[in-house]
Amino acid sequence: MRIVVALGGNALLQRGEKPDAVPQIEHVRAAAEALAPIAEQHELIVCHGNGPQVGMLALESENDPALARPYPLDALVAQTQGMIGYWLAQCLRNAGVTKPVLSIVTQTLVDPEDPAFRTPTKFIGSVYDPWTARQLAELHGWTIAPDGERWRRVVPSPEPQRIIEQDSITQLLRHGAVVVCGGGGGAPVTADATGGLHGVEAVVDKDSTAAMLAIAVHADRLLVLTDVPAVLADFGTPQQTPLRSIGLDELAGRHFAAGSMGPKIAACGRFVAVTGGQAAIGALDDAAAVLNGAAGTAITGGVANHG
Amino acid sequence: MRIVVALGGNALLQRGEKPDAVPQIEHVRAAAEALAPIAEQHELIVCHGNGPQVGMLALESENDPALARPYPLDALVAQTQGMIGYWLAQCLRNAGVTKPVLSIVTQTLVDPEDPAFRTPTKFIGSVYDPWTARQLAELHGWTIAPDGERWRRVVPSPEPQRIIEQDSITQLLRHGAVVVCGGGGGAPVTADATGGLHGVEAVVDKDSTAAMLAIAVHADRLLVLTDVPAVLADFGTPQQTPLRSIGLDELAGRHFAAGSMGPKIAACGRFVAVTGGQAAIGALDDAAAVLNGAAGTAITGGVANHG
Repeated sequence: MRIVVALGGNALLQRGEKPDAVPQIEHVRAAAEALAPIAEQHELIVCHGNGPQVGMLALESENDPALARPYPLDALVAQTQGMIGYWLAQCLRNAGVTKPVLSIVTQTLVDPEDPAFRTPTKFIGSVYDPWTARQLAELHGWTIAPDGERWRRVVPSPEPQRIIEQDSITQLLRHGAVVVCGGGGGAPVTADATGGLHGVEAVVDKDSTAAMLAIAVHADRLLVLTDVPAVLADFGTPQQTPLRSIGLDELAGRHFAAGSMGPKIAACGRFVAVTGGQAAIGALDDAAAVLNGAAGTAITGGVANHG
Repeated sequence: MRIVVALGGNALLQRGEKPDAVPQIEHVRAAAEALAPIAEQHELIVCHGNGPQVGMLALESENDPALARPYPLDALVAQTQGMIGYWLAQCLRNAGVTKPVLSIVTQTLVDPEDPAFRTPTKFIGSVYDPWTARQLAELHGWTIAPDGERWRRVVPSPEPQRIIEQDSITQLLRHGAVVVCGGGGGAPVTADATGGLHGVEAVVDKDSTAAMLAIAVHADRLLVLTDVPAVLADFGTPQQTPLRSIGLDELAGRHFAAGSMGPKIAACGRFVAVTGGQAAIGALDDAAAVLNGAAGTAITGGVANHG
C-alpha cells in the first residue's frame, strides 16, 4: 500500500516542554519507532508539523539585533523542514528502516487570491499582553488577535493547491525510498504570471497538505497521527466517548471543531471523498493499530460504525 | 557530463552585509542565473556553503532565553540546508531550469576518531573580546581561539567519509533531476557499533564534501565557485597574478593557503588525483566560462599551463 502519514508538530514537542533539541529528538525517536514497521512494509510519505519549532525560530529572528527585518515565514518553515527532516530521516534509519530515507525541502503552491490572505487566522509564536502585542504589530506589520486572555500574531493559512516537488516524490516512492516532505505544510509560494515562484508570509496546515499530497500521489491510506488516541464525540462533556469511525455523511452534521481536531477530520474527509480510500486519526504510539483499524477513528465513505 | 558545483557561503552573503533574508535571496537569484544553463545541459549537483547562515542561527540559539541549551551544530546545519536549499530550488526554477530541482537534507558521515575532534580549528559565529569569549566558553563548553585581535568559538572540522543519501542522489540525477545537497558540508554524523547514526558538534568543509561526493557519484567535473575570479600566485604580494591552471605536481610545492583558498585547491586536487577528471576554481558569475576553461583556474592532472 501507499500511505501518507501526517505527524503532529505537538507530537514532537509537547505543551509545557522547553523547545530544546534534546526532548524533540527523543520524541522524533519514538515517532520513528512507531513508523518504522509501516515504512518497511509499505510505501510511506511522512508529512510533519512544525508549530512549536517555527514559533521558536520566528521569535529568535524577531529578537536578533543583527537583522534589519525578521526572516519571512517561508524561509523559517524551510529551516524547520531541514531540522525536523534531518531528525526524522536519521531516526527512521536508526529504528531499523533499511530503505533509503530522503527528506525533501518542499514548496507548496497557494492561491494569492485565497481568502485566508484577507483574514489571517492561524496563531504563531508567543502570547503577549495587549499592549506589547500592539507594539510588536506596529513594529513588524503583524496582524494580531486575542488567544484566550492574551494576544498573538495571526498569519494567513491558505489552502494548499500543489506540491511543486510532487512528481519527484512519487518517483522516489516507486524506487523504494521513504520520503519525508511537506514539513510544516510546505514553504508557501505563489506563482506569478510567468510561472515564477515567490515565497509568501503564510503557513499551510500540514494536515491539509498531507491530504492534498495523498490525493495527488494516489495513496491508499491517509493516517493523521497525533497525541490523542481517537476523535471524541461530545468532546468536553461528561458524555465524551471515543469514536471508532465517522462516515462522510456525518461530517457536515457534527461539531468536532474543539482544539485542532476539526481540520484533521476535514482533511481526512477530503481524502476519502475524492479517492474512496481510507483515512484514520489516532495516536502516534498506536500507528500500526490505527493503520489496521484496531485503534483510532476511521473516516469512512460508508455508514459509520459506532460500536 | 555530470558536474558537482561547490557554491561558497560568502557568495550568498557577502562580508559586511547584514544577514537579512532579502540580500541573500538576491545573491541566490544571481547564483541560480549563473548555474541555470549548466543545469539544463548537464547532470548537476549543487553543494552550498553556510558559514554566515549557521553563524547567525547559532548566535540566535545561544541568546534564546527559552532554551536550556543552544541547539547542537548538526541541527543548525540542517536548518540552513532547509532554508538555502529552498531558496536555491526556487531560484533555479525561476531562472529557467525546466528539470525538477530537489533539495535533499543531507547527513555526512565522519570518523569519531578524526584528529579534528581533538583539535578544533574552524571558526564559527561572532568575534568577542577575550573576556566575553572566556565567559561564553565556560557557559556553553566551547573551545575558543584568537581570530586576529579578537576571539571566536572554534569547532572540529572532520573529513567527510560518505554522504548517507548518496545512492538516492545518484538515482535522482539519472532520472533527470538537479540535486541540491551536502549544504554546509552536510549535517555531521558518526556511526555507532550497530550502525546507528548520531549528530556531532562539528562542521564539515563544504568543498571537501563536494569533492568526496564528486568522486562517489563519478562526476566528470568539480567546479568550486566563489567570489574571486581565479587562484592567485604570490597572493598578497605586488607580483600576485591569476593562474590559468595548477598541475597536481605543483600542489605540494606551492603555498596557496591564504584565506580559504587552500582547502578549495586541496579539494580539487583530491578529485583530480582520484578520478582523473577536471576541476576548476573561479567566480560564480563566470560559471559557464569556468566550466569550459575560459575563466578561473583549472586544477589538472597533467603539466600546468601558466600562459
